[in-house]
Amino acid sequence: MDQTLYTRPASIDAVKIHDSFFSRLMQTTVEKLIPYQWEALNDRLADTEPSYCIRNFKAAAGLTDASHGGKVFQDSDLAKWIECAAFSLMWHKDADLERRLDETIALIGQAQQPDGYLDTYYILNGLDKRFTDMMNNHELYCAGHMLEAATAYYHATGKRTLLEIMIRFVDYIDSVIGPEEGKKHGYPGHEVLEMALIKLYEITGDEKHLRLAKYLIDQRGQSPLYFEAEYKKYGNPYHWEKTGMGMKYYQADRPVRSQDKAQGHAVRAGYLYSGMADVARETGDETLVEACRKIWDNITHRQMYITGAIGQSKTGEAFSYDYDLPNALVYGETCAAISLAFFAQRMLRLQPRGEYGDVLERTLYNGTISGMSLDGQRFFYVNPLEVDPQRCEQNEQFRHVKPQRQKWFSCACCPPNLGRLITSLPGYVYHTRGNTAFAVLYTTNDAQLALSGGTLTIKTETRYPWDGVVTMHIENAFDGAQIALRIPGWCKGYALRVNGVAKLLQPMDGFIYLGVAQEDEIVLTLDMPVQVVRANPMVQDDIGKIAVTRGPVVYCLEQPDNGKQLQRVFLRADAHFETQWEPQLLGGVCTIRCMGDRLCFDDWAPDELYGTGAPQYRLQPLTLIPYYAWANRGLSEMTVWIHERLG
Amino acid sequence: MDQTLYTRPASIDAVKIHDSFFSRLMQTTVEKLIPYQWEALNDRLADTEPSYCIRNFKAAAGLTDASHGGKVFQDSDLAKWIECAAFSLMWHKDADLERRLDETIALIGQAQQPDGYLDTYYILNGLDKRFTDMMNNHELYCAGHMLEAATAYYHATGKRTLLEIMIRFVDYIDSVIGPEEGKKHGYPGHEVLEMALIKLYEITGDEKHLRLAKYLIDQRGQSPLYFEAEYKKYGNPYHWEKTGMGMKYYQADRPVRSQDKAQGHAVRAGYLYSGMADVARETGDETLVEACRKIWDNITHRQMYITGAIGQSKTGEAFSYDYDLPNALVYGETCAAISLAFFAQRMLRLQPRGEYGDVLERTLYNGTISGMSLDGQRFFYVNPLEVDPQRCEQNEQFRHVKPQRQKWFSCACCPPNLGRLITSLPGYVYHTRGNTAFAVLYTTNDAQLALSGGTLTIKTETRYPWDGVVTMHIENAFDGAQIALRIPGWCKGYALRVNGVAKLLQPMDGFIYLGVAQEDEIVLTLDMPVQVVRANPMVQDDIGKIAVTRGPVVYCLEQPDNGKQLQRVFLRADAHFETQWEPQLLGGVCTIRCMGDRLCFDDWAPDELYGTGAPQYRLQPLTLIPYYAWANRGLSEMTVWIHERLG
Repeated sequence: MDQTLYTRPASIDAVKIHDSFFSRLMQTTVEKLIPYQWEALNDRLADTEPSYCIRNFKAAAGLTDASHGGKVFQDSDLAKWIECAAFSLMWHKDADLERRLDETIALIGQAQQPDGYLDTYYILNGLDKRFTDMMNNHELYCAGHMLEAATAYYHATGKRTLLEIMIRFVDYIDSVIGPEEGKKHGYPGHEVLEMALIKLYEITGDEKHLRLAKYLIDQRGQSPLYFEAEYKKYGNPYHWEKTGMGMKYYQADRPVRSQDKAQGHAVRAGYLYSGMADVARETGDETLVEACRKIWDNITHRQMYITGAIGQSKTGEAFSYDYDLPNALVYGETCAAISLAFFAQRMLRLQPRGEYGDVLERTLYNGTISGMSLDGQRFFYVNPLEVDPQRCEQNEQFRHVKPQRQKWFSCACCPPNLGRLITSLPGYVYHTRGNTAFAVLYTTNDAQLALSGGTLTIKTETRYPWDGVVTMHIENAFDGAQIALRIPGWCKGYALRVNGVAKLLQPMDGFIYLGVAQEDEIVLTLDMPVQVVRANPMVQDDIGKIAVTRGPVVYCLEQPDNGKQLQRVFLRADAHFETQWEPQLLGGVCTIRCMGDRLCFDDWAPDELYGTGAPQYRLQPLTLIPYYAWANRGLSEMTVWIHERLG
Repeated sequence: MDQTLYTRPASIDAVKIHDSFFSRLMQTTVEKLIPYQWEALNDRLADTEPSYCIRNFKAAAGLTDASHGGKVFQDSDLAKWIECAAFSLMWHKDADLERRLDETIALIGQAQQPDGYLDTYYILNGLDKRFTDMMNNHELYCAGHMLEAATAYYHATGKRTLLEIMIRFVDYIDSVIGPEEGKKHGYPGHEVLEMALIKLYEITGDEKHLRLAKYLIDQRGQSPLYFEAEYKKYGNPYHWEKTGMGMKYYQADRPVRSQDKAQGHAVRAGYLYSGMADVARETGDETLVEACRKIWDNITHRQMYITGAIGQSKTGEAFSYDYDLPNALVYGETCAAISLAFFAQRMLRLQPRGEYGDVLERTLYNGTISGMSLDGQRFFYVNPLEVDPQRCEQNEQFRHVKPQRQKWFSCACCPPNLGRLITSLPGYVYHTRGNTAFAVLYTTNDAQLALSGGTLTIKTETRYPWDGVVTMHIENAFDGAQIALRIPGWCKGYALRVNGVAKLLQPMDGFIYLGVAQEDEIVLTLDMPVQVVRANPMVQDDIGKIAVTRGPVVYCLEQPDNGKQLQRVFLRADAHFETQWEPQLLGGVCTIRCMGDRLCFDDWAPDELYGTGAPQYRLQPLTLIPYYAWANRGLSEMTVWIHERLG
């Protein structure tokens, strides 16, 4: 394949972020989340269910005789922790952490079976049953996450131990699954191995790694359906049979190229689509590119919350249907938003279009990082856009929505997943292709970008996302080097000056392309007024409501600033908004203030439930905060969508 | 007790209804529902799960050796059918039906055990286990329904066979349950026996029947909790342990006099509260009256939909909390609205206040009868106030809401329950106390009301609920006779003329009291304009929305008249409304027409999910139909609450 068609993200260690926004997240992850999760993995957290992760590996290694504990996919928690920690080593050296990783990897090696197999659930519960319930039992999922961890640790340290362990396991998988007679014609019940194999292939260049990834994608949903045959043959449970989802839950009801809507479990879906984009890129398969585009359009034009959250329905943590975006009854799993960021990153690689960067940015500033408290120790699984704590507590239909972040989960997929996203954030700032550096995210950073003709050094300074001025110093350039500046979709006006001279350039597909020379100073000013946003009228839950955004940041009303019963607040679209930088608030945020109206009771008898009185309103000063920062000040109501006051 | 304090409903055979509204329901029930359900009880309906009801009784009688089929409470379906049929015999003689009832009652007698016990589930599954799971297993519920059937059949025919069967069973229950040492200190897991025992007591005058009813009420929720001890002792399941409801599901977490909010399973709750009001009346216990009033206020001022539906949450088919009234995610079981009608009827007996009649009327014209199709052969269990069929089909969280009435249910509680309400409708029209006849409902009818001083004959003509003029002819009166006319809460203006002369009388507690004489012609004109109703601002789901009512009838927008995507319809409160009597439409309804606005797309790029365009509207003629008549014209959207257009 002609890989010059495609971009690749700059490597994590090529971009040093030192802003106040992403750096805060990255520092919190290094200082709090990584050590906190290590305690969790070792069952040393009080008041939470044990993880059993390390215990399982010790038992699988024959060091103890404990039975398997936790979920069937418990190994993946350790894998995500390793990956998260590995990424962090690329910008934050920590010899103790590296030593701990080496010890853990040694333990993993001890747990590996002579034939290469590695999954503590089956090692401890009977290897004869392995690969007999691929629909439900997550062996390939755990393999995928551990393989991702292995590639990350290799990139971070150059050490190949875990990589070799996982190459042996992949060889074993390859001997069991595939198109050949006698092999299982199956694929993962929970996708992620597809992406992971491509990461491996990018290191090894070994075609068999690409071939296996491609097989898992191509075979998925082919008739006869493997999962259907499997559950009948082995008498496995089929949990989704009686719902409207069935095999759609697994994106396995029909071949992926025939799927044109996002469906089923949202995290599974996001990982599949990311893997499809990876395989499409590495094979140049236009039919697969087309399938990715259709699904991308379906998600981002039909099934995505304004925060970048996806997966509307609690049942199956799943997509539902086009324009169905309930705000209080949402699922919006943190992991699902993360999977959308992965998909966006890969769509960008296929084609550098601004819209992919827009969605990436939407998830990164809103629906992913909302999953972690500012102190890095509490986590949301579900990310609602509207919360009334009383409803979550007293109406059982809303019980899955937690109005406060939780300490840990027995199914702890989200915290380490968010961790690995955050520690890999430097890898999302730039893409490169040929001699072009694509500036996808704007953040203060120093970058050394390996382009075809040489290394381009860019130092960027900005207060983004709180301010739209981005100043880039080119410190090292060469003939033909160019930079492509993303003009975000939310931006209605911008100015570009190079060395003080205004440049009138139009974006192509969302990027302004600009040749650069040594010592250039590029100042991009993105107009960043407060914006009042409405949803497409097809979105029934947002009709009559508006949301407030500024730049990439989605705002919300929260109870500590605005009192209870936030649904009684009305806001005019033409309100006068004032922004204010508040360094002491919520880790430093820009707040938005305005006057709103509160529906009041003057006309209501205390006990009148239904009446003919006219609505009356009282002026109320409102303060909006960034959505990601909500639920850091105690139990409170919150809403993103606000009733619009007309008339 | 001084029973002259309390009213009593006129007996069903004292009031001959011959209007077009209730008569249509009553005829449909007699012609369609009763024979249809008889087929169901005998497992002769195609395409539905068998009922097993008659088969179970035959097996219990030793006539076959079939095992028990259906739910543990399956007997109650037969009981409700008998009660429904019995009521119908009071206004629609049918010798064949009566013969069938006698045969069925003979079968029930054959199934009864020598000790009086009668529940086919335990007769067929082991009598040793009876009364070991009163929390879950419905013996007392089935007993209650069969006892109600027995009293109804006795009133209808004077025949005592079923009554004597049930008196023997009640004696057995009395020997097992009670305050004495050695008896079980329990009460029904699903209430209804309390009400039934009072109906029995009204026939027998036997204090032990009242005493047992009072015990069941007084003992409920006393510490130590009987259900808690029971499930631990016998190892029974405790389904609600892990929800927020726990024992509240059964209204059994604390004594009933300490309960001040409606809680738990809504049908159980409504039956309990009705039984409490019965016992309060028969014992004159003011503490119990006070408990009833508190709970009444809580329901009707805080937890009742505008249609009279109650029970907001699918989980547990239960109440949730004050002002929590989601429209699309509602439960609103038909049986629950029926239980509210029962409660209203009994609150009226305690004190003739108009508000009790208002709620009775709200349920009877809206949230109860919405449960049955116009042809009497399809039924709603759940009665939503807003439906989008796509959402019900494709978002699993809404799957319990059926956009079309179903043929039958394996748990078929609602159809026969609605049947027995409808065939007893003549019993809701008048109450009497001393020499006063309380006109609670307005419908064309001939009534012979037994008052203290004699029989008062009233002939009423009206087109209510489509017109507010009610003409009453007094054909037989005596000295001191008076009539109390309910002025509905929705009525903002009325005129009263007696023999052509205007009378300026003020209502007391919602009733105008008027002495009557022979040959009087009373014309009550209730102003019945179209009304725009709003919900109390505490109801977050109705904020920014209005509902349209006329008289007691709640209206809705439905797709056949107004197209899809009804949430895009906006309506101005000051719209010009026109009413039109349409005899051919939906069994004859008054429709309401007006101009509304439809939120449109002019400003939206086809693929833009979130944008900054202003909302635009296009004029659209709207037709509203009565809520009860929706879903009779194929699969369609519907909404009661409509976005209000301001500005």
